[in-house]
Amino acid sequence: MSTHTIRDLGERALIARITARLGTASWVVVGPGDDAAVIAPERGALEVWTTDVQVEDVHFDRRFSPPDAIGHRALAVNLSDLAAMGARPRAALLSLVLPPALEVRVVDGLLDGFLALADRHRVTIVGGNISRSPGPLMIDVTAVGSVRPRRALTRASARPGDEVYVTGSIGDAAVGLASLRQGGTASLAAQQERYLRPEPRVRAGLLLGASRAASACMDLSDGLADAVRQVAAASQAGITLDADALPVAPDVRRWHEQNGHDAIQAVLAGGDDYELMFTVRRAHRGRLRHVVQHLGDLPLTRIGVVTRDRRVVVRTAHDERPVPDGFSHFE
Amino acid sequence: MSTHTIRDLGERALIARITARLGTASWVVVGPGDDAAVIAPERGALEVWTTDVQVEDVHFDRRFSPPDAIGHRALAVNLSDLAAMGARPRAALLSLVLPPALEVRVVDGLLDGFLALADRHRVTIVGGNISRSPGPLMIDVTAVGSVRPRRALTRASARPGDEVYVTGSIGDAAVGLASLRQGGTASLAAQQERYLRPEPRVRAGLLLGASRAASACMDLSDGLADAVRQVAAASQAGITLDADALPVAPDVRRWHEQNGHDAIQAVLAGGDDYELMFTVRRAHRGRLRHVVQHLGDLPLTRIGVVTRDRRVVVRTAHDERPVPDGFSHFE
Repeated sequence: MSTHTIRDLGERALIARITARLGTASWVVVGPGDDAAVIAPERGALEVWTTDVQVEDVHFDRRFSPPDAIGHRALAVNLSDLAAMGARPRAALLSLVLPPALEVRVVDGLLDGFLALADRHRVTIVGGNISRSPGPLMIDVTAVGSVRPRRALTRASARPGDEVYVTGSIGDAAVGLASLRQGGTASLAAQQERYLRPEPRVRAGLLLGASRAASACMDLSDGLADAVRQVAAASQAGITLDADALPVAPDVRRWHEQNGHDAIQAVLAGGDDYELMFTVRRAHRGRLRHVVQHLGDLPLTRIGVVTRDRRVVVRTAHDERPVPDGFSHFE
Repeated sequence: MSTHTIRDLGERALIARITARLGTASWVVVGPGDDAAVIAPERGALEVWTTDVQVEDVHFDRRFSPPDAIGHRALAVNLSDLAAMGARPRAALLSLVLPPALEVRVVDGLLDGFLALADRHRVTIVGGNISRSPGPLMIDVTAVGSVRPRRALTRASARPGDEVYVTGSIGDAAVGLASLRQGGTASLAAQQERYLRPEPRVRAGLLLGASRAASACMDLSDGLADAVRQVAAASQAGITLDADALPVAPDVRRWHEQNGHDAIQAVLAGGDDYELMFTVRRAHRGRLRHVVQHLGDLPLTRIGVVTRDRRVVVRTAHDERPVPDGFSHFE
């Protein structure tokens, strides 16, 4: 059965195969299978909407990304955007664009990864679409979450004097991807996993928003360099990062040094980490301690400060340099 | 400047170019430019969500679909899904997957068509995403509308004895597409326009839902044959269509006859019309008259009846035949 393709199965049967795996929720009035889904909004809450796509040979490579990892990532990148707004994930729409020669087991695997992550974050798949692709496999997801009024986190509210933090560690996913492209070194398995199945920081985003600890927040999808530039620009301020404070795993630092890279610049420029960068007013450090107490194992690291001076720089013991540009499509 | 590509322009400048054209609304708390959009739901209303994609060389051919028509269609197919639920369109998210060699003027044209239709239906673009494509151009849209509780139209509520109606005329888009593929006959300009820039029946759907005139409703994206099969199956009933009653333009009938087709079967099987098919209880004919009075020029035509017998057939003066299968991806 390993060569059983979706062309063999047919569109109707494929849709039935997928919808049979979907759960529902009390607030879903009309679920998958009609022209559109009908949903009761959460009372007293604002809604948070985002969309992000995973395109074959742009965002993933099927030679080293297993189907479940592709499905996981397609939802994770969207949940990361909700987390960056301080929103609680609620629902998603799944748009699949599939080459007809794709094996059914690949679609099953995509769904395995997608639904396992959805289940952990109580995300209900309320609808979607399936279309044929003349080439690459694509998964486009729209995710919807909810947030209390005045609790949404934006990029634009950092102020000079605020301290800059990041969740978890940075630079792992880029090293994981590079090692997968080189054939996959077993010693970098943790970094590869960070690239393949990023963990959206949903709980951290929720706590940072609900507690009003963070003044601004953004996820690191396009790298820390991009995030600090975007938050600084949106907030009409500058940011100075402390190179020595960056939470970089020893394996990641060593890999860059062995490959002749400037480790700090490489870690700042690399994308795909899906950590959160956020800013905290000094007067709100107490709120941040409250967040740390409820967050469990995920470390939060202070890595810099927001400045009145508009420059975006990284400072070492020896010098101060501009933060590199982040990843950009097309160029 | 005609060879100015989006690779030349760069991602940031492209996003800025697009967002500069977008309007906003009082209920948009955070619009495009952050990790996600924040929206105030409409009070007392349910939300209706749908997603549909237009893929190059699957749904459109750039040799004969001008950019504005591709953009128009990308939104129209989604508004048609909202119309089929009786929903009022409110917002959309726009996900563009673009080959780097695409000319900037093509993106401008896509936006021209998309935004002109959005403007006419008061749809606010609250967010989206831009990604690189390794091949085909794709536009994936999520549209969100609102509907009063118990006014949403589904496919599942037709009952034996209900009468079957369709808006406008059917078969035009398929003939328009065929003639465009053959190089475009000027005499079929009206049909070509129906294919290129379908008009979603938003007002008809709203009136049918708000007045409770319709018992079930679905749009004809995959053809009338598909719609009657889906509504019959979802409602656990049959449908008998009257071939002589089908609203088919003389030009369309003639084109099929000249090309040696069975005109009725061809018109039933052809897709892309984006009319609405709906059912009406006989006792609710008065409500339907009310809809007609408020609908203006768009004709509504009675084309058949829902039956207890589960067969889905079309009856002529001479015989009765099964309705053909609708369009299906992959096969």
